Amino acid sequence: MLGRTGPIALAAALSAVALQAATAADSPMLGFDAAGAASERALEQKFDAALDPADQSAWLKRFSSAANHVGTAHDEANAREYARLLSSWGWDARIETFYVLYPTPREQLLELVAPVSFKAALHEPPIAGDASSAESGTLPPYNVYGADGDVTAELVYVNYGIEEDYRELARRGIDVHGRIVIARYGGGWRGIKVKLAHEHGAVGCIIYSDPHDDGYAMGATYPDGGWRPSASVQRGSVEDITLYPGDPLTPGTPALRDAKRLAIADAATIMKIPSIPISYADAQPLLAQLRGPVAPEGWRGALPITYRMGPGPARVHLLVHSDWGTKPIYDVIARITGSETADQWVIRGNHHDGWAMGAWDPLSGAVAELDEAKAIGALVKSGWKPRRTLIYASWDGEEPGTLGSTEWAEAHAQELQRKAVAYINSDTNARGFLQAGGSHSLQRLMNEIVETVPDPETGVSVLARQRARLRALGYGRDARSEDGRQATLAASGADLPLSGLGSGSDYSVFLQHLGLAAINLGFSGEGDQNGVYHSLYDTYEHFVRYGDPDFAYGVTLARTAGHFMLRLADAPVLPLQFGGLADTYDGYRRELHELADARRHSSEELSQLIDANVFALASDPQRPVSAPAREAAVPFLDFAPLDNAMERLRAAARRYDDSYAHTIGAGNLPDAATRAALNQLLLGMEQALTDSRGLPRRDWYKHIVYAPGVMTGYGVKTFPAIREAIEAGRWDEANASIAVAAQVLARYCERLDQASARLSRTASG
Amino acid sequence: MLGRTGPIALAAALSAVALQAATAADSPMLGFDAAGAASERALEQKFDAALDPADQSAWLKRFSSAANHVGTAHDEANAREYARLLSSWGWDARIETFYVLYPTPREQLLELVAPVSFKAALHEPPIAGDASSAESGTLPPYNVYGADGDVTAELVYVNYGIEEDYRELARRGIDVHGRIVIARYGGGWRGIKVKLAHEHGAVGCIIYSDPHDDGYAMGATYPDGGWRPSASVQRGSVEDITLYPGDPLTPGTPALRDAKRLAIADAATIMKIPSIPISYADAQPLLAQLRGPVAPEGWRGALPITYRMGPGPARVHLLVHSDWGTKPIYDVIARITGSETADQWVIRGNHHDGWAMGAWDPLSGAVAELDEAKAIGALVKSGWKPRRTLIYASWDGEEPGTLGSTEWAEAHAQELQRKAVAYINSDTNARGFLQAGGSHSLQRLMNEIVETVPDPETGVSVLARQRARLRALGYGRDARSEDGRQATLAASGADLPLSGLGSGSDYSVFLQHLGLAAINLGFSGEGDQNGVYHSLYDTYEHFVRYGDPDFAYGVTLARTAGHFMLRLADAPVLPLQFGGLADTYDGYRRELHELADARRHSSEELSQLIDANVFALASDPQRPVSAPAREAAVPFLDFAPLDNAMERLRAAARRYDDSYAHTIGAGNLPDAATRAALNQLLLGMEQALTDSRGLPRRDWYKHIVYAPGVMTGYGVKTFPAIREAIEAGRWDEANASIAVAAQVLARYCERLDQASARLSRTASG
Repeated sequence: MLGRTGPIALAAALSAVALQAATAADSPMLGFDAAGAASERALEQKFDAALDPADQSAWLKRFSSAANHVGTAHDEANAREYARLLSSWGWDARIETFYVLYPTPREQLLELVAPVSFKAALHEPPIAGDASSAESGTLPPYNVYGADGDVTAELVYVNYGIEEDYRELARRGIDVHGRIVIARYGGGWRGIKVKLAHEHGAVGCIIYSDPHDDGYAMGATYPDGGWRPSASVQRGSVEDITLYPGDPLTPGTPALRDAKRLAIADAATIMKIPSIPISYADAQPLLAQLRGPVAPEGWRGALPITYRMGPGPARVHLLVHSDWGTKPIYDVIARITGSETADQWVIRGNHHDGWAMGAWDPLSGAVAELDEAKAIGALVKSGWKPRRTLIYASWDGEEPGTLGSTEWAEAHAQELQRKAVAYINSDTNARGFLQAGGSHSLQRLMNEIVETVPDPETGVSVLARQRARLRALGYGRDARSEDGRQATLAASGADLPLSGLGSGSDYSVFLQHLGLAAINLGFSGEGDQNGVYHSLYDTYEHFVRYGDPDFAYGVTLARTAGHFMLRLADAPVLPLQFGGLADTYDGYRRELHELADARRHSSEELSQLIDANVFALASDPQRPVSAPAREAAVPFLDFAPLDNAMERLRAAARRYDDSYAHTIGAGNLPDAATRAALNQLLLGMEQALTDSRGLPRRDWYKHIVYAPGVMTGYGVKTFPAIREAIEAGRWDEANASIAVAAQVLARYCERLDQASARLSRTASG
Repeated sequence: MLGRTGPIALAAALSAVALQAATAADSPMLGFDAAGAASERALEQKFDAALDPADQSAWLKRFSSAANHVGTAHDEANAREYARLLSSWGWDARIETFYVLYPTPREQLLELVAPVSFKAALHEPPIAGDASSAESGTLPPYNVYGADGDVTAELVYVNYGIEEDYRELARRGIDVHGRIVIARYGGGWRGIKVKLAHEHGAVGCIIYSDPHDDGYAMGATYPDGGWRPSASVQRGSVEDITLYPGDPLTPGTPALRDAKRLAIADAATIMKIPSIPISYADAQPLLAQLRGPVAPEGWRGALPITYRMGPGPARVHLLVHSDWGTKPIYDVIARITGSETADQWVIRGNHHDGWAMGAWDPLSGAVAELDEAKAIGALVKSGWKPRRTLIYASWDGEEPGTLGSTEWAEAHAQELQRKAVAYINSDTNARGFLQAGGSHSLQRLMNEIVETVPDPETGVSVLARQRARLRALGYGRDARSEDGRQATLAASGADLPLSGLGSGSDYSVFLQHLGLAAINLGFSGEGDQNGVYHSLYDTYEHFVRYGDPDFAYGVTLARTAGHFMLRLADAPVLPLQFGGLADTYDGYRRELHELADARRHSSEELSQLIDANVFALASDPQRPVSAPAREAAVPFLDFAPLDNAMERLRAAARRYDDSYAHTIGAGNLPDAATRAALNQLLLGMEQALTDSRGLPRRDWYKHIVYAPGVMTGYGVKTFPAIREAIEAGRWDEANASIAVAAQVLARYCERLDQASARLSRTASG
């Protein structure tokens, strides 16, 4: 997993009726008639029986036995072993190789030069009792795609280093220009911290893991518990994936050996200043030497110091020199050709490259995927064939910036856009609750599936447990709060929503660049979670103590994702529904209205307060905090095209779902020709949500509904062009983006209406 | 100050029009006609001119030059010097002595006996550069009115040690029975922590200052900054002041030398288990040895450890042995007899006893009060005499439990109830913003006064600065939130509300036992605040660096309180208004409705969630958290009597304020006989809010609107009998208390109507 949200953030997940009812042999199954459902159900039982936690454990141990970042022999060996296993199970497995820019550190130095001297260790020592942590072959902790540099400057603490933090600094008269910033992890993609530091004039960026968010404050540290110990470092990419992910030198095209490449200096996704990730043991001496204003309450971590903003008197020297070489990456691509519609592909993926040993990230998900492939292979050997073609992929180079998935998808873009039904992704997996996001046309299917998958710890369905969790989280909360609304929804029995997808794993290119329906799946949220994320201590030893000791959730992930693959592969009619999508998008539309109104209100309120001199009067003259900068007045936007388009979408969605209910839902499958035409329409639905011009200033991103936020990095922004224009105060762009979205939605409705018409003819026929 | 709210909590304060308008010579003045207002304004200018920060500084230095807790020679000497100064300025100053139970520590011991040994230092070393901190004569840090004991038991961390914390422990299966609890300061009166620990079966209680709330997390520690250093201890009383304050052995009666006394064992306000306050240096080794569940996020402080709940394996040995002797306390009572109505008293008070040197608490307020008395003495010498009698009091024994004020008021109860117009209190004072609470009939007067007192740092009025502060605090907040509503109010220009008074300083007996109108005043909220509260480091040296370096706010407090005293003493008609009171009480009534509704909703919601097994399903089986205990169903309460009474009160208040506006407000003062009758009615208004039967289970408290909460200690509960009955689920008591409140309010309205009738006759006459 390239990025992650904090341990507290929750991607809302999934649901519908009751486990016993749903598992009844005669309950309906989306896209199937009754007979098809029964045989599919029998198939899934055989599939489930073939899954084996012992296999997952053995594979995890082997795959995580040596360092497996891009360019290591073990990473390549893992790919080859993955391909060998798939081949042995009857898959047509091949390795596709791409050649990517992959800088690695040659020399790194961080030292405090004033007012006292301290040299950062920048080193993770082995942990007693964890043999894997003593393996050699790992790179020192570093930020891939940071710039080279040798800078010495005053230090400034910038909290998470996101835009609102710079506004707080400005209110205290603190400018980072010519200085080095130190930011703690959290609040967004790490690359944003470096990018914003550069944009604000800083010459270097240090990123550290504060024990408040990721260390002893959360629980006992490794090896006493699972949380991050003092010397542990979260390494990771700082590529500007909000612009485009993948190889920085080949945007939009595959990084083949002889591809045309940008000069490194021209690659917009490589940072312009040096950055380095450090441990909290290394951070504390630096932070302790800062003076200047005491940091606001929300900026304070759990180190036993007074957090101050600076600037200085701490001065630090930061040096980063890298080898800017090209490395091969190895994507494993395995397929079983469909028996009926071989040119419709259902694609599954998980990456295999890690940082250091990568047991949690990504191999816990990779071995679940492998278990699925093994079980499917056994089904094929027993005589079954999928209706559509199944592709199982194991990506390389996800950690530096979803390189393997991006380059492969760029290499096969046109074919994928013609053939791909959906892409199902996973990554790190552990004990806990389902986290699921993705295309909302698949929301009903997701609910249907997890209603029948049992949660291993409680025995109820994954869906029922998710409902319980949301209801428990909402207990005692205001019904209007986000937690309160989720709890109400969970209690209502309505489908639980998929979260929108931003970035941070391999689904990005499929969903956001190619416009393919995509789902991201995983379990997490219990125990000590991934307290060793992106460190040397992400080992087999750690995972089997704190992750998923008996691989019960590995099996549960394999069941969930496997059922998804099998249903999508076998359903006579693609199991999409649109009512949940229309409701969700209409919710986004309401949010956009509220956002514009809130900004208008906030701008007016702020002007009134500044005019009344309120901030100056309220400030302690010994610790002055000036007024926030005035915000431009917010005009009323022309939302009408979007409002009208959304009305039409809701009607079109209702029409399709009703037509479906009256035909296939009532056991009446269309004939083969109608099905073929209908499936062809449905297969392209998600692409109908793209705009070939792409998003403003980042045209690699084509989807009009989902994108990572320019200022969040992996957090999704829905209707990103509109939302980010409002957030940034670009009113003409906001109005133009509303018009674009309305046009795209109109095309989407036309296609959906065609599908409904096909179905209606079935009903009348 | 016996207790205090946290540095973040804000008692809302005060306001109305614009400084220049208000200070205009012809602006109206409540209770005066135009001529009277002009001469009063001239008087106040002379008063202001006599105030002198240099005097305040010199007195503070002298009074805080040695330990001055109850029983010390210096405390008595301070009282005598106070009396001498007052006498020298023309006051009739006497010392009234009472004899109170005042235990002091003979032997204290706290040690960790397992799994490792550690002996707590229980000692505050002198601080370099602070000569006062090297003075001898202080007591070791201790909790006065804790029990003696010698106990050894497993340790449990209970967060703030309030009821909701015990509910969290119960959900994790942790029982404190037979164990020793360790609680951090905050969340309520320290005595509540010990009382609840005992009620839950604990055998001892340790209270410590966490650096998150009161130490390095807030800012640099003394002497580098003003915040609490690692060895500093907040000592203080643990008397159960929610039952009754004052001498534990003489409830309701004065502790005269030959008073009839309870046996110590029968004194309900003395704790039943030993307790001890400690520093965070002493707390960390204890907390670090706890295991068991990781403490919930809201329980985590700023020590560099994983906060865990226990129980054990840490075992501690706690020993407390005290001298249970009786000590004299010295109240200074000084008066200037009124020229016209000598039997109407306006009373001012601030205590003079401290813990250790007591520079901030209480002497910063005491020297401001002294400055007022000096200035008034000068006015008298120049020929002025107050219309009513002025009494300036300097209380002893506030720290152990408002002993001096309580015993004096109990000694003079009947006379006070006949004669006292109002009591104006202060205590610790420093740079910052006005904190003001009290009787809402004085709210309009408070706004009128602080509209004309300049804030020394900004030059605008104290009221204008307060409005600016509330507006700044509300910036960006939801308009429905408390901060948002306060900001809207502040921007509206309406009077700013007085906060309701709970306990924690000497106003309690006057307001809550005798039913006298009372106000508590002070400035705070800037700089490092009182980071040395109740420690050895509360010194002159600290105060002049971090408190109020130039005594500008000492002078501002003297101006504010002094103008209050002069207006109340001189106004031909007592300057009470009732519209703000009725609105405020009606707001309390709405809160009670909302509280009952919220509890009903919460009880139903909880039952549904428990029935649906939601908490069990949502729990991590490796870290189980069980469902909260079921709550009894909440009936609909018979609010009608209170609702009707409040309607009547609003009408009666409007009638009085309108009558006032059309008569005195229009420059038409009643004749002397009418004024006398009217003032007699007004003087008794606050007593009309008392019920002679007192509150349920604590009949010392007579006021039906304001009391300290049984579960908060100093935080106010408004309409306490009703509110606490609802909170505790005593529904019959809630209904009965509603009826009582309605009866009391009816009597209040009758008296108010009589006053309005008097005024109306003026208008028609």
